[in-house]
Formats: sequence, C-alpha cells, structure tokens
Amino acid sequence: MTPFEAKIESVVDNILADYGRNRDIDKIELYRKPDKDVVIDIIEKLRRIVFPGYFKDKNYRMYNAKNNLSMLIEDVMFNLNRQIALVFQSGGELEESAQAHAQDVCLAFFERIPTIRAMVQTDLEASYEGDPAATGMAEIIFAYPGLFAITVYRLAHELYALQVPMLPRIMTEYAHSITGIDIHPGATIGKYFFIDHGTGIVVGETTVIGENVKIYQGVTLGALSTRGGQSLRGKRRHPTIEDNVTIYAGASVLGGETVIGRDSVIGSNAFITKSVAPCTTVSIKSQELQMKTRSDCASCAGCSNVFWCE
Amino acid sequence: MTPFEAKIESVVDNILADYGRNRDIDKIELYRKPDKDVVIDIIEKLRRIVFPGYFKDKNYRMYNAKNNLSMLIEDVMFNLNRQIALVFQSGGELEESAQAHAQDVCLAFFERIPTIRAMVQTDLEASYEGDPAATGMAEIIFAYPGLFAITVYRLAHELYALQVPMLPRIMTEYAHSITGIDIHPGATIGKYFFIDHGTGIVVGETTVIGENVKIYQGVTLGALSTRGGQSLRGKRRHPTIEDNVTIYAGASVLGGETVIGRDSVIGSNAFITKSVAPCTTVSIKSQELQMKTRSDCASCAGCSNVFWCE
Amino acid sequence: MTPFEAKIESVVDNILADYGRNRDIDKIELYRKPDKDVVIDIIEKLRRIVFPGYFKDKNYRMYNAKNNLSMLIEDVMFNLNRQIALVFQSGGELEESAQAHAQDVCLAFFERIPTIRAMVQTDLEASYEGDPAATGMAEIIFAYPGLFAITVYRLAHELYALQVPMLPRIMTEYAHSITGIDIHPGATIGKYFFIDHGTGIVVGETTVIGENVKIYQGVTLGALSTRGGQSLRGKRRHPTIEDNVTIYAGASVLGGETVIGRDSVIGSNAFITKSVAPCTTVSIKSQELQMKTRSDCASCAGCSNVFWCE
Repeated sequence: MTPFEAKIESVVDNILADYGRNRDIDKIELYRKPDKDVVIDIIEKLRRIVFPGYFKDKNYRMYNAKNNLSMLIEDVMFNLNRQIALVFQSGGELEESAQAHAQDVCLAFFERIPTIRAMVQTDLEASYEGDPAATGMAEIIFAYPGLFAITVYRLAHELYALQVPMLPRIMTEYAHSITGIDIHPGATIGKYFFIDHGTGIVVGETTVIGENVKIYQGVTLGALSTRGGQSLRGKRRHPTIEDNVTIYAGASVLGGETVIGRDSVIGSNAFITKSVAPCTTVSIKSQELQMKTRSDCASCAGCSNVFWCE
Repeated sequence: MTPFEAKIESVVDNILADYGRNRDIDKIELYRKPDKDVVIDIIEKLRRIVFPGYFKDKNYRMYNAKNNLSMLIEDVMFNLNRQIALVFQSGGELEESAQAHAQDVCLAFFERIPTIRAMVQTDLEASYEGDPAATGMAEIIFAYPGLFAITVYRLAHELYALQVPMLPRIMTEYAHSITGIDIHPGATIGKYFFIDHGTGIVVGETTVIGENVKIYQGVTLGALSTRGGQSLRGKRRHPTIEDNVTIYAGASVLGGETVIGRDSVIGSNAFITKSVAPCTTVSIKSQELQMKTRSDCASCAGCSNVFWCE
Repeated sequence: MTPFEAKIESVVDNILADYGRNRDIDKIELYRKPDKDVVIDIIEKLRRIVFPGYFKDKNYRMYNAKNNLSMLIEDVMFNLNRQIALVFQSGGELEESAQAHAQDVCLAFFERIPTIRAMVQTDLEASYEGDPAATGMAEIIFAYPGLFAITVYRLAHELYALQVPMLPRIMTEYAHSITGIDIHPGATIGKYFFIDHGTGIVVGETTVIGENVKIYQGVTLGALSTRGGQSLRGKRRHPTIEDNVTIYAGASVLGGETVIGRDSVIGSNAFITKSVAPCTTVSIKSQELQMKTRSDCASCAGCSNVFWCE
C-alpha cells in the first residue's frame, strides 16, 4: 500500500465511522423508505395516463394504443402499490397489513383517475382562455409549466387525501423543481385553475381555492408567521380564495383567516393580510417614483462605456 | 381471477372508457405531434453546435473534432427536419408537401447558425463584463443560467421567425424549467444581452429589447392585463426596452405602448406602466420602514429559543 | 449528390468554417476543461455520501451497506480527483504537478466530509423546527428544495475554500436549476440554516451569514450595484447577516457594508441598504391599498364571463 492509498483508506474509514453517530443523517439501511427515482417515474407515467396521446413511451409500441395504455396503467399500479406499502411500513407496521392497506389505497386512487382527468381538462381550457400567447391546446399540454404543476398537484392531492405520507410531497416538489411553482399537496383547489408563467408561486398546505381562479408568477398564498414552528402543525394557516378571483404577479395573501371574496381582483405586488369583500378590485396606490435625467445626456450616443453612460 | 385482480381490471377498464369522451385530453393516437423528448435532445445538441468545445458527447469520439461536429450537425438536421414535418402536418396538410416545407425551413434555420453564434458571443462578453463574480468565459458557458436561457431563446426565436409552431415554445419552456427564466420565443432581443441570476424573469411574446440591455432576477416585461384572453392574440402587449437600459431585480415594465428610453436605469421593484424618457434613472422613493427594538434585548444572548428571542 | 444533399453539405461547411474565428465560443478541442455531466454526477453521489440511507444506487447492491458506501466514496474520489486535475491544468500547468495538486486537494476535501455532515444535520433540524408542514426528517431529506440547495452549497463551499476553480459554481448552479435557489459557493453560512420554499433566493459571493438564520422565497442578499463590473472582482459587495435573524419573503438586503444585527427580523418585501441594529423588527409601513367595489356586483353570480365579471 502506497502512502497515498493509505491516506485514502484513512479518509474512507473516517467517513464510515462518522455514520455510526445515530443522527438522522446517519441512517444507512432504510429498507422501508420510498425510492425517490421510482416515485418520480410514477408521477411522469401518471401524466401519460392523464394525457394519453401526448407523451410517447418507446417501450409500449408493439401493440395498439389501448393495449399499451392498459399495460402502462397496470405497471404504474404495481409500482405505486409497492411505494405506498414502503411508506406505510415505515412506522413499524406489520408487512402484510401494510401491503393490504397499500392495495386498498392504490385501488381507491386509480378509481379517482377519471375525476382527476375531468378537473385537468377544465384547467387546460382555463389556460387556453386566459393566455393570448397560447396557440392551441397541444402547445399548452406540451410546454406550459402551469398545467404541469397543476396536473401533478391534482394527482398528488388525491394521495394526500388518502393519507399516504411522503409520496405526495415528493411529487409536488418534483413539479416545483421543474416549474418553480410550489403547491403543497394538502391545498384544496377548484376547477378551471390557471397559472401563468408561474415561477416563484407558493400555495401553502391549508390554502382553499375556489373555481375559475387565475394566479400569476411570484404570488404567495402563505402563512402570516410560522414562528410557532411544529406547534402550528395541522392548524389552518393559509388563506381562502373564492371563485373567479384573479391575483396578479408578486402579490401575497397571507393568514388562515384571510378570505378573498368571489370575483375580486388583487393587483400586482399587493400585500394582503385581511379579508377582501367580494367583487372588489384591490390595487396598491401608485408608487412614488423618482426620475432623474442625466444632464450630459446629449453625449450618451458617443459614450465609450456601453454599460453605463454618464 | 382473484377478487383483487377483478378490481384492477375494472379500474383499468374505467380509465380506458374515460378516454372515449373526445375532450382535448382524450386524444390517444397523435402520430402528427412532436416528440417532446426529441425536441429537448435537439436543443441540447444545438447548444453543443453553438459552443462546440464545451459539452462533450461520448458518442462522437472516434474521429477528429471537425468530423464529429459534422456528424453532429447532420444528426440534428435529420431530427429537427422530422419534428418540423410533424408539426406542419398537424393541421392536416399532405405529407409530402409538409416534408418539403420542413426541409426548406430546416435548411434556412441552419443557414442562420453562424449569425446566432455571433449574437451569443456578444451575450457571453456582456455576461463577463457585467458580473464581478465571473472568473472567466468558460465558467459562464458551463454554469450561468442567464447565458443558457439566452442561447436557447436565440435558437428558438429563429424557428419562431420561420413560423414553426410549438417547437420554439417547447424549447424556451425547457430553458424556463432549467433556469426559472421565461423568455417567449416571439420576443425580439438585441446584441450584448445580460441576465444576472435570472430566476423569476418573464419576457413576454411581443417584447422588443435593444442592445446592451441588462436585467436581473424577478424582472417582468409583461402585459398590462390579459383579461381579453384569446381576443388579444397577435396584438402588441409587451414593452419596448431601448439600448443600454439596465433593469434591476424585481422591477416590472408592463404594456405594449410602454417604452424605456435608451441609457435609462430602472431601480429594484419599480412598477412601470408608462414610458420613461432616455437617460433617466428611475427609483422608488424609499420605503417607509418601521423599526421596533425589543426592550428585553439584553437577555437575548441567553435566550433558549434559538429561532425567536423576546 | 442531389441538390438537397449539396445544400446540406454547404450549410455544414459554413458552420465548420465559422468555428475558425477564434472567439471564446469557437474553441473546439478543450481537453483540459471539466466534464459538466461528470461534475453533476459527482455532486449527486456526494449527497448520497452525506445521507447514506436515503438515496439508493442500483449499482451497489451486491454487498452490505458499509461495503457499498466504501466503494461509492472511492468512486467519487477517483472522479473528483480527475475533474480537479482538469481544471488545474487549464492554466497551462504541467500535467504531473496538476495531478499531484489535485490529489492533495481531493484528500483535503474528503477529510472535511464529517464536518460538512455535522453542519447539514443542524440544517435538517432547523428545517424541521421551522416548518409546521414538515411531517418528519425523511420527508425533508427526500423532498425539501431548501435542504437540497444548502447541502450542495456546503459541499461546493469546501471546494471553493480549497481554491478549486469552476467546479464549485457548476455544482451550486446545478442546485439553482433544481431549486431556484442561487447560493454562490463563496458565501459563508453558519449552522442551523433554514430556507423555506426558496424559489428566487439569491445569496451573493461575499455574503456572511451567522447561525440559526431563516430566509424565505424571493429573498436577495445582494450587491448594491455591479456597474463596476469586473473592477469589483474580489471586493466585499454583499451583506452580513448575524445570528438568529429571520428574513421574510421578497425582502432584499444589499451592500457590502450592510449588517443585520443578531436576533432581528426583516419583514416581507423590505428593501434594506443600511445596517439594522440587533434585536430589531423591521417592517414596511402598510401599503396604501385602493379598494373599488363594482356596483353591479349583485349580477356577478349570473355573469356569463367566468374570468371577469363587470
């Protein structure tokens, strides 16, 4: 063994020894935890079940489309069943009862797929109606991050409602990583939901959103304060947004007792911590802007510094 | 068949039956739609054609670099040609004419590559000049999300200008998902464009940006209102930003008639819906801040609650 | 050769000729540059070394967990060593000395792994304490973007401290692309760091953050102005955040001389360019909001336009 090899061995041994300290991060054999890659594969395949013609799978080409979809659904059921069993076991339950429970939950989830698809169709229509830049439904299904995040939320929310731990959040955080839109699977959201652009949106766990609601990039539907930390778990911390409300970019609506009444419009960057009556248009009073014109402006065109001219 | 298997079969049958309702989401056999994975592979390979030395392909190592690049370009041409033909066919055109049209468009696109590369070189220089944290050109090409988003935009914009449907938007939304920067392929953007950090930026479809423009994270170049929905399609809805303008983080510039004159600077969080003259520095009047010092502050250091001390 | 084939050849030749112009983007044979895909693979494997039980690798299943981890660590050491050697060579150094230097740096980095893991354990605890929506440690490790970004930062920061060029930034920009959280590897960050939601956060290169600090989505810890461009390289441009500070969503703290004193709280959307004393709560004075109720509101319920009713 060369001196360099000895150093490597010593470094490896130190890291292995560090795993023996029994902190949360030291757990090595977690047979009962979900497999994140498999969960992400499941949510991608569920999207294909929701939009059967839009996302091809090279592995399912030999038969006709119906046969392929039937195989796809059974494949996802098998894998989802297994992941649900793994998270149900994590509390130490008996393996057989966890398995049986997982089967029941998995069936109940797949029975909800037509209902979920009906919701997503309304979201698709709302996206088309709401965005002048949309040239057709296919473009929205292929490219729009808002519809992506909403679809993943609608699927994850059903698992959340069936009290499956961890998997729904892994799914919505996957959508968050793809889109910048952070919708907690616990939120309740009505039909015809439209998100435009979407980056920076946060929709908290106990938010309730009605039908025909539109929100734009950077909107927070959040908690007033989470200083209470874990003592607030399970309490209503996020707002209610009634039917037909539009919330423009960068606005925040905070607090579990805050209600935005139906048909209201919240302007860009408004910061709302109290309820708003129905049919109200809220805007912030115009910012006072300071304008300063540089006096030597005539010479700007010939200025040598392309980035700053004064 | 066990009772459980029967339940699975019933669930699968229900979902398959649900596909028969002829909504947008029910389409199953879409032979004429693009393949999103292939489109993303194409844009990644186009980036390699733009920056030939920076992104290796393990599949092209047997010959010299020039041979490899020649193979790469022909590979991308073949695949892009096929995807363009697929989206041209989607309206029901004859296959042969769509194929011929796709070939013309694909050639016209590749003829523009040297021009696109010349633009990207200016963007690279602007990134280096504008960011004190940049240690060199290679770091920017390898790591900067701004240059990534701009490069994808510049490629997609040429396809948009050639009136290719869907593919340009799939490409820029791919960049959006990687970077949080949402540039519509329809926008017009001049040389030496620099984006710093970038997350949350939105540049709308009809925006026009001059040369030497710098924008920071969270900037929106957007529409005043899209309440008109599809009736606004094709109309000018987004602003004009003239040469040498800098727009700092979180500012919004909205509306199709809004012009930010050359050499102007828009301060952080400014909300602009009217034109600004050239050579103007715009800033929001200082926020009135409320400061409250906690009176028991002396005891803070010994406070047991590490997250909140009062 | 058909006329179409001749056109293809001409287009390919034009692009190849365009590579001969010797601009930054024209470099073709960069044997001494890092391989971005390998660097990303390394950071993902380093995360598995930090959280050994949470992310499985299908390639390491034949032996027991300790053996697998030992193999994983040696694998990462080998690959990281090679990438470090590549970036050290880029300045033109002799191959052997670069290789020796890379070995030293790589060993020094791996010696720091237990220290890094101890920091990450504190960040994990802070995430659990700070978020009422967190149901357990595993959920945070599997799903929370904040912990993801902090973990990648803590690893990349050690390489930055060892003066490895480019690789640390590729790593943190990878985390930025996944999470929307942009932490420069040069920043200095104390224990028990908590990021909630996170999209749009920017933490600049020379920022110094104490212990038990919490920041929310859209917070910028940035520079006052970077108009100086490259002339500012290496200068202190970003703020100091002392222990136990909380900074709520959308706030900006800017400037190299700005200090937020210990135990202070910065409210949402505050824009801070001057120092704040310890134990201070800063909030922006309530926005003046304009409320306009639509007079024909009684008819809203029956309004035919679901998106706008007036």
